[in-house]
Amino acid sequence: MTYTEKMLDAYPAQINLDHRQLAAVIDALEACAQACTACADACLSEPADRLPMLSRCIRDNLDCAAICSTTAAVLSRHTGYDANLSRAQVQAAIQATKSCGDSCAEHGSRHEHCRICAEACRETEQALNALLPQLQPTGATGPPSKSSPQQQSR
Amino acid sequence: MTYTEKMLDAYPAQINLDHRQLAAVIDALEACAQACTACADACLSEPADRLPMLSRCIRDNLDCAAICSTTAAVLSRHTGYDANLSRAQVQAAIQATKSCGDSCAEHGSRHEHCRICAEACRETEQALNALLPQLQPTGATGPPSKSSPQQQSR
Amino acid sequence: MTYTEKMLDAYPAQINLDHRQLAAVIDALEACAQACTACADACLSEPADRLPMLSRCIRDNLDCAAICSTTAAVLSRHTGYDANLSRAQVQAAIQATKSCGDSCAEHGSRHEHCRICAEACRETEQALNALLPQLQPTGATGPPSKSSPQQQSR
Amino acid sequence: MTYTEKMLDAYPAQINLDHRQLAAVIDALEACAQACTACADACLSEPADRLPMLSRCIRDNLDCAAICSTTAAVLSRHTGYDANLSRAQVQAAIQATKSCGDSCAEHGSRHEHCRICAEACRETEQALNALLPQLQPTGATGPPSKSSPQQQSR
Repeated sequence: MTYTEKMLDAYPAQINLDHRQLAAVIDALEACAQACTACADACLSEPADRLPMLSRCIRDNLDCAAICSTTAAVLSRHTGYDANLSRAQVQAAIQATKSCGDSCAEHGSRHEHCRICAEACRETEQALNALLPQLQPTGATGPPSKSSPQQQSR
Repeated sequence: MTYTEKMLDAYPAQINLDHRQLAAVIDALEACAQACTACADACLSEPADRLPMLSRCIRDNLDCAAICSTTAAVLSRHTGYDANLSRAQVQAAIQATKSCGDSCAEHGSRHEHCRICAEACRETEQALNALLPQLQPTGATGPPSKSSPQQQSR
Repeated sequence: MTYTEKMLDAYPAQINLDHRQLAAVIDALEACAQACTACADACLSEPADRLPMLSRCIRDNLDCAAICSTTAAVLSRHTGYDANLSRAQVQAAIQATKSCGDSCAEHGSRHEHCRICAEACRETEQALNALLPQLQPTGATGPPSKSSPQQQSR
Repeated sequence: MTYTEKMLDAYPAQINLDHRQLAAVIDALEACAQACTACADACLSEPADRLPMLSRCIRDNLDCAAICSTTAAVLSRHTGYDANLSRAQVQAAIQATKSCGDSCAEHGSRHEHCRICAEACRETEQALNALLPQLQPTGATGPPSKSSPQQQSR
């Protein structure tokens, strides 16, 4: 069990999402962010004649890394859960992993780092798509009331 | 003129968006991210009897800070422009600034930092809403072709 | 094998650090960043009478999350390796994991999320301390020359 | 007056640093992070024959962007001030702005975006060097006690 799932189990209020599934999505997002950061850097060390073909891939990697990292943080918070915000950010991450997965897949046969990164993007995109329908207004911690903070004891 | 606008003017290919407007949006996002980080921290130093009322506000601040910062980075990149991704991330930022602006506004009469932060959120939300319709498939740098990297000379 | 280690193996130039050790450090940093983000949020959902005791812990969690995430990104890049920069950022991360581990450990007997988070911080601090002496000027990819970019083929 | 300085003035406890100077450092860090993100992207759109010379510059830009952004967040928090952590992160940012400023300055005569970005890096490096000696153990908010949270009223 990763720290991610342990932390979900230790959250002092209720989270109306399957802990194992949510932890898997968060872990996939973090792993994807790291792979994208590493792939952008690996592209930069490719030979001079390959580099120009990789500039769009590098850009997509950088966007995907930032978006996955931010989405992981949003999904790691449950206090004052806001389904609309979670859904909007997850949709941006689905778009980012799709675009970056496509870019990397184009170069996968020539560059092993692109092939691996495309795999990380696809895996994350699928996990996000499976999570999205479950992000309902009441999908997580208790009443998402604006005025009353969460004070549920464990 | 901020560095942001100068950097847009120095970009070696065409950006089919008004530089001044885009720079203003990016600067607003960065300023909003900083205000949200500072507001979350200021809330944490409020007296013990106030703190529980502010827990949701703190959470919204943290999400808004991360999302605004990531959105500023996405909008700062023009190589291999992808309108779908920009739009999805801008929509998430509109949601984040709206939610956080609402949370902060609730406490604005009692906490000056919340009042100022709500102002930063509203300003950014409006700037993003004005930008959104202009993020068209051909809204920025040249053909967003997957296979041909941008090689336009200045 | 995680994506992190696979990506190190797929890097197109030499990395003069043990791939397995480096991957373990990067993975620990990402896991610690996630645990800290989750711990800050879990603290915010503790009962009102506990919250004031946790404000410093929340702040330390937020710093540690941001610093670990940035350090993981710096250690994931090998193009134009700069030992001085890597060392400085790793030292900041050692300080952050130490401070946050101390803060969380104080509350570990009452709050399970603090106990788990302290464990993640300690583990990461140790991994960073073991890596630090190996971050030598020639510790990674080839000559860290300023003027010649890396063009080594695999 | 930027939001940054207004937020420092609205902080509910004492900050033992000059608000104007601290706000200027934070704003410089945010502006530098944005310039570095934009410079990395502008480099990626340079013609194919220029790109290989810029790979190290791109890497330095990416590190500097992440480190400046994280340092701005650390300096924006005053609850439970920890001078050792602030100093360590500021030192990493000094190293990052120096390295990136050097890399960009090398290409400043050929690439306007590198010239502007070098300027942003130098300005930030100087601001950080001026702040560093003032980050003393008692430099900011009250007693940095571990056990007692900050509850000072304004």
